[in-house]
Amino acid sequence: PHPAVTLWHVSNELGCHNALCYCDVSAAAFRRWLQLRYVTIEGLNDAWGTSFWSQRYGAWAEVLPPRDTLSAGNPAHQLDFARFSSDELLDFYRAETTIIRSASAKPVTTNFMVTAHIRTQDYWQWAPEMDIIANDHYLDNRLDHPASELAFAADATRGLANGAPWMLMETSTSAVSWQPRNVAKVPGELLRNVAAHVARGADAVCFFQWRASRQGAEKFHSALLPHSGTDSKIWRETLAVGRMLSNLEPVAGSRVEASVALVFSWQSWWAAEGPSQPSGDVRYLDQVHRAYEALRSTGVTVDIVPAGARYDDYAIVVVPCLYLLSDEEATTIAGYVSGGGTAIVTFFSGVVDEHDRIRVDPTGAAHPGAFSEMLGVWTEEYFPLIPDQRVTLSTGATGSLWSEVARPTTASVVSTFVDGPVAGHPAVLSNRYGAGRAVYIATALDAPSFAALMSGVVADSPVTLPGLPVGVERVVRVGGGTRFTFVINHTVADVTINGSGTELITAAAVDGQWIIPAGSVRVLSEELT
Amino acid sequence: PHPAVTLWHVSNELGCHNALCYCDVSAAAFRRWLQLRYVTIEGLNDAWGTSFWSQRYGAWAEVLPPRDTLSAGNPAHQLDFARFSSDELLDFYRAETTIIRSASAKPVTTNFMVTAHIRTQDYWQWAPEMDIIANDHYLDNRLDHPASELAFAADATRGLANGAPWMLMETSTSAVSWQPRNVAKVPGELLRNVAAHVARGADAVCFFQWRASRQGAEKFHSALLPHSGTDSKIWRETLAVGRMLSNLEPVAGSRVEASVALVFSWQSWWAAEGPSQPSGDVRYLDQVHRAYEALRSTGVTVDIVPAGARYDDYAIVVVPCLYLLSDEEATTIAGYVSGGGTAIVTFFSGVVDEHDRIRVDPTGAAHPGAFSEMLGVWTEEYFPLIPDQRVTLSTGATGSLWSEVARPTTASVVSTFVDGPVAGHPAVLSNRYGAGRAVYIATALDAPSFAALMSGVVADSPVTLPGLPVGVERVVRVGGGTRFTFVINHTVADVTINGSGTELITAAAVDGQWIIPAGSVRVLSEELT
Amino acid sequence: PHPAVTLWHVSNELGCHNALCYCDVSAAAFRRWLQLRYVTIEGLNDAWGTSFWSQRYGAWAEVLPPRDTLSAGNPAHQLDFARFSSDELLDFYRAETTIIRSASAKPVTTNFMVTAHIRTQDYWQWAPEMDIIANDHYLDNRLDHPASELAFAADATRGLANGAPWMLMETSTSAVSWQPRNVAKVPGELLRNVAAHVARGADAVCFFQWRASRQGAEKFHSALLPHSGTDSKIWRETLAVGRMLSNLEPVAGSRVEASVALVFSWQSWWAAEGPSQPSGDVRYLDQVHRAYEALRSTGVTVDIVPAGARYDDYAIVVVPCLYLLSDEEATTIAGYVSGGGTAIVTFFSGVVDEHDRIRVDPTGAAHPGAFSEMLGVWTEEYFPLIPDQRVTLSTGATGSLWSEVARPTTASVVSTFVDGPVAGHPAVLSNRYGAGRAVYIATALDAPSFAALMSGVVADSPVTLPGLPVGVERVVRVGGGTRFTFVINHTVADVTINGSGTELITAAAVDGQWIIPAGSVRVLSEELT
Repeated sequence: PHPAVTLWHVSNELGCHNALCYCDVSAAAFRRWLQLRYVTIEGLNDAWGTSFWSQRYGAWAEVLPPRDTLSAGNPAHQLDFARFSSDELLDFYRAETTIIRSASAKPVTTNFMVTAHIRTQDYWQWAPEMDIIANDHYLDNRLDHPASELAFAADATRGLANGAPWMLMETSTSAVSWQPRNVAKVPGELLRNVAAHVARGADAVCFFQWRASRQGAEKFHSALLPHSGTDSKIWRETLAVGRMLSNLEPVAGSRVEASVALVFSWQSWWAAEGPSQPSGDVRYLDQVHRAYEALRSTGVTVDIVPAGARYDDYAIVVVPCLYLLSDEEATTIAGYVSGGGTAIVTFFSGVVDEHDRIRVDPTGAAHPGAFSEMLGVWTEEYFPLIPDQRVTLSTGATGSLWSEVARPTTASVVSTFVDGPVAGHPAVLSNRYGAGRAVYIATALDAPSFAALMSGVVADSPVTLPGLPVGVERVVRVGGGTRFTFVINHTVADVTINGSGTELITAAAVDGQWIIPAGSVRVLSEELT
Repeated sequence: PHPAVTLWHVSNELGCHNALCYCDVSAAAFRRWLQLRYVTIEGLNDAWGTSFWSQRYGAWAEVLPPRDTLSAGNPAHQLDFARFSSDELLDFYRAETTIIRSASAKPVTTNFMVTAHIRTQDYWQWAPEMDIIANDHYLDNRLDHPASELAFAADATRGLANGAPWMLMETSTSAVSWQPRNVAKVPGELLRNVAAHVARGADAVCFFQWRASRQGAEKFHSALLPHSGTDSKIWRETLAVGRMLSNLEPVAGSRVEASVALVFSWQSWWAAEGPSQPSGDVRYLDQVHRAYEALRSTGVTVDIVPAGARYDDYAIVVVPCLYLLSDEEATTIAGYVSGGGTAIVTFFSGVVDEHDRIRVDPTGAAHPGAFSEMLGVWTEEYFPLIPDQRVTLSTGATGSLWSEVARPTTASVVSTFVDGPVAGHPAVLSNRYGAGRAVYIATALDAPSFAALMSGVVADSPVTLPGLPVGVERVVRVGGGTRFTFVINHTVADVTINGSGTELITAAAVDGQWIIPAGSVRVLSEELT
Repeated sequence: PHPAVTLWHVSNELGCHNALCYCDVSAAAFRRWLQLRYVTIEGLNDAWGTSFWSQRYGAWAEVLPPRDTLSAGNPAHQLDFARFSSDELLDFYRAETTIIRSASAKPVTTNFMVTAHIRTQDYWQWAPEMDIIANDHYLDNRLDHPASELAFAADATRGLANGAPWMLMETSTSAVSWQPRNVAKVPGELLRNVAAHVARGADAVCFFQWRASRQGAEKFHSALLPHSGTDSKIWRETLAVGRMLSNLEPVAGSRVEASVALVFSWQSWWAAEGPSQPSGDVRYLDQVHRAYEALRSTGVTVDIVPAGARYDDYAIVVVPCLYLLSDEEATTIAGYVSGGGTAIVTFFSGVVDEHDRIRVDPTGAAHPGAFSEMLGVWTEEYFPLIPDQRVTLSTGATGSLWSEVARPTTASVVSTFVDGPVAGHPAVLSNRYGAGRAVYIATALDAPSFAALMSGVVADSPVTLPGLPVGVERVVRVGGGTRFTFVINHTVADVTINGSGTELITAAAVDGQWIIPAGSVRVLSEELT
């Protein structure tokens, strides 16, 4: 009942370092989990396809975690172990939460790690158990576009919160200490980063760490108060962050407007990166990030949603490399399209069911199984590309990593490969399906080509584009009869936008010409009539 | 006695994943094997050179498998462990075969893996125990020239069969699933691959797998019947393979004609890639493949033979990087040359005896010990090159990886190094030896330079070259009074050859102008008069 | 008392392969070592900063060696384990030495490995226990400048000997056998290498191995007598080395003249490369080598000295990346400068105390803590660069790896960054401090830029430069009233220097024009008046 307690934070970054355990105790727990899932050992044998390579289990006691093997592991075995591991950690959260709830009525949460390097928890399963969604996010400077990954992670966190405001439990004022080289933030970058989180739904922003430690494993990790004290960029920007958040008080509780959805799935990630795939070079999150960045470059705001969500409010749903999904999830997406929606599906999607079982249609069609009818396409054979191999499309677009012989049934061919192993075959196809349309992309488009394609699809949709220069990020939150337009200018030139209302950060009235200085963040508040 | 049983296949790909075992049980078996080989512990100490670094063993019980060490391992120890491991697996084969033979009179075999990535069995030792030689072969798209490796593997399998027809126990219709990225076969490639095996002696061609599996570790491995069913390139080419094999029925039992031999040795491979060599960049199989490809580019057909074979029927014997061989084997090669043969020996050959003991001649000459007299050369010192370092020869040829100070005794200098650490010293030497000639190449020639050199040697020999364009593969099988000329056109242009007889695949009469269409396989049958 | 015994050599290359042990026996020894160091567990907790991440130890028994962890290790824990490991090996040396000394009055030593790939012994701690300093040195051809590393290692060995002559216990006549590819020495290189050691203080030169072994792990390691016998470059140069050393007899006992010192610290090396540093790309020895090579390129001779040495005799003291040092050591360096000396300090220096604890000044200044006052600089924030990122300075100099916001207090700005993340901030600063001057370099200068800077500083100092062409190495030893000027001409052109006296190697009188032929070594003996 202590008045200072407003929120319980259980443990810390559950699964960050210890998500997978292969010991005998875990083996026993894995068996219990499997028994609940499959009831009989025959059920497990069927789900895992153990007839292949004579892997049939005769008793539960024979089942082990997927420890090192001399040859390739069973992909379904590994997938279930990933599910089990996520579930066990969630059980741990539940166990601690139960104790807390028995003694306190305050909300309980734990900090997620929706980032570029953690993939071991299926947060779509976890989110319903949280009283408020919290995320830890640090810029990952190993990526080509760290700011794009930040935006993706923030949008995904909002997706986990089902659109509601969320909490940034941890971020840094500048460099971290756990990357191979720890890039520091340049002047203004901290404010842009924080504003990007708030724009995308964060109503609370916390930092690790308060005062930079002198010792230990994170003594070079940045802090609110750096080693160098208060006469420093970090401290001055820390104060500026405080002022900015204070000025943004009216934004709290409002919700982000997004007209495009991107389907994201941890379970598909695990399965897509299992052993013995057509190409080990296809990394799920890379492909998701590419699709996200192509969308973001058009200026639209994207909701990150699970497979099987309600998509009716979206003008476009993007489905990148969704290798695994259930029949129900596939039906939901198809229903959205047939009802008038637009879907963009990229290669290696719809391939397997929830047991990582190829969706072979007894009538003949196979890949991309779950989406063949919706896309009006069936793929005869995959032709992964070798490193540094590029393919050109008849539109001039370019791609890499992947090609395939995709054969249209009802789809029309938008472009074909003009070189590579499947020259002459379709590369991009478009299909009328019911009242809607589904586009299939049979390669990994390079960024400019992907952006151009997305731009075209968005232009054909009801979505209104803000038409801002590249590097100017715009997100709208709406709540309490007010529209809050966040503009983050990542460029070195001032930007002028039409707008009227009150700019919250400078507390200035805007009437018509709204200037966002180079490198700055501005938030326009407009009363909705 | 069941009539469906025509051949016993023992186990599967013995040693593919479990060739080496370092446990205590294997340690005991290793000791027994060593006792049989060396009889006394003094014999082992002598063979392994244990006086160096005070490694002397006092009792058999002190001997362990070559487990991880803090410093460099003893190369002879590692070599014997490789031999032991191969022998143990062969014993396992023998044990199962003995049981089968006690109950059945049908032939017995197991599938070898003469490929680019398996090196743990000395198949020259295994081959005599097989009733028929069988191989598994999959294209390895990690290589620069997968089709060349296929030809090498097929020729080596025929060598294991002592020239007799053999069986391709496993191959694939298209992509496999165990390479980092699994490149699929382009149209026509499957037929060319199968024809290349048959041309080089395969009288049976089997595939893994019949129907593409939906689950398990190889669900993306190609099959006769793919996921996409019968309306597919794979299924159509599978049927075409069946028709082709049917048309090639008359070829069965015939034998391949080859006038050039290439000496290949698993034991030398093991020793050459042992610890603490002059250059870890010199990989035995790479060097063998380079020599093979240089030969193949001239159009000659090559037999792959063991060290110590009977070479009298060959116009040329090529000896690439044969680091280890016994005195008897060296004598056989020298006898072949002195009797009128032509040998081409590349660097790092003849260096050690069967115990990996440097062949230091008490009279002074050392490297390339076993071949010094035959080559008329002794090498004063090795000068391995660093990565990306190239050397140029006085002929304009180029090389990499290796150079040395090779000093002619009776040899004449064909070309010298014009740059690099041994500029001015001989790079290629030629020696009259008895009635024959031996050429020594003191660097790793680049492909065009190596091909040019081989071309010259072949032109000087009695071998008749077919004179076909690059990428057109020609192999002749002869049997039952008929000559079968296989031509595989890997190029995109038709090829016309003089020939008369019956083309088996199209069942067309050929009289004079024989056209092999781009990408196609043709087999001309001519009666020998 | 056997008259053949002149020196005891204990063990061999202590710590080369077994410097670190994590077993339970070592754990117990580590605890004993820690108890002696910290007395109480509270002392250890304080030194290691265990409050961070709740690592507090309650009892000695809880302390383990720094075994693998799921997250980042505690840097102070790892640093102390490195110290312990060095100390334990030294104790082993002491134990054996005690026995020898009880039975013999002859001097005792062991061979150090001051090389580019061994870092596990703090030889500053070891040196006082040796009766004569001995080093093993092999050229490391993995480096860009193997001959520069040889010079550094020889100078460092002389530093360990406190300037006295030392012994080269092991070196090679040509290639070794333990590098990825073992580059052989070109003609003359052996003599230049041996002369470089002697020039830099070696009074004895021994080789591994006498006769090249035929078997074992080093059968391809070069020897005095190679496999190829006495008609060989190696044997002829071995004899030439013998003659050269014989001719250099008068040099024995003389001491090297050096007017510049470079501070080198194994303990700082260990700490600087601990876990969770700003940039894992900053490798201590690389940075030391860069500074050394920049100095060497000017022609000056450098003494390698410990932190906390007596620097009064040096015109310049260079302090590259001295991440860790004690207060006393910092005071010594500052005292040298204030007394009139010149110091050059490179980035990431003075950062932590002996417990790897950031030197946060309560008054505000932080990095480069130990040197802030002396340098007249405090660094607000580090900005490590990403791979392949280069920065340009206002002087045109270029750098990589590192940049920072360095803020002058009393220093003047010599050059600024013109690009990169801290464009506009100082890159090189110079500070008057007492009667002396301290220069700070806030990036890793590229070799030509670093050489130019060093050249400038040397030109401003009392040091006289020999003004020799690049690649001509000159070192002076003085003793017994004679000056011995070694000149090693690594170039392909003869060099002429003014000089008079007797050239020892050719036993020729020199009067005025002294010619050192291309690739040769000459030593001029002059009587000092």
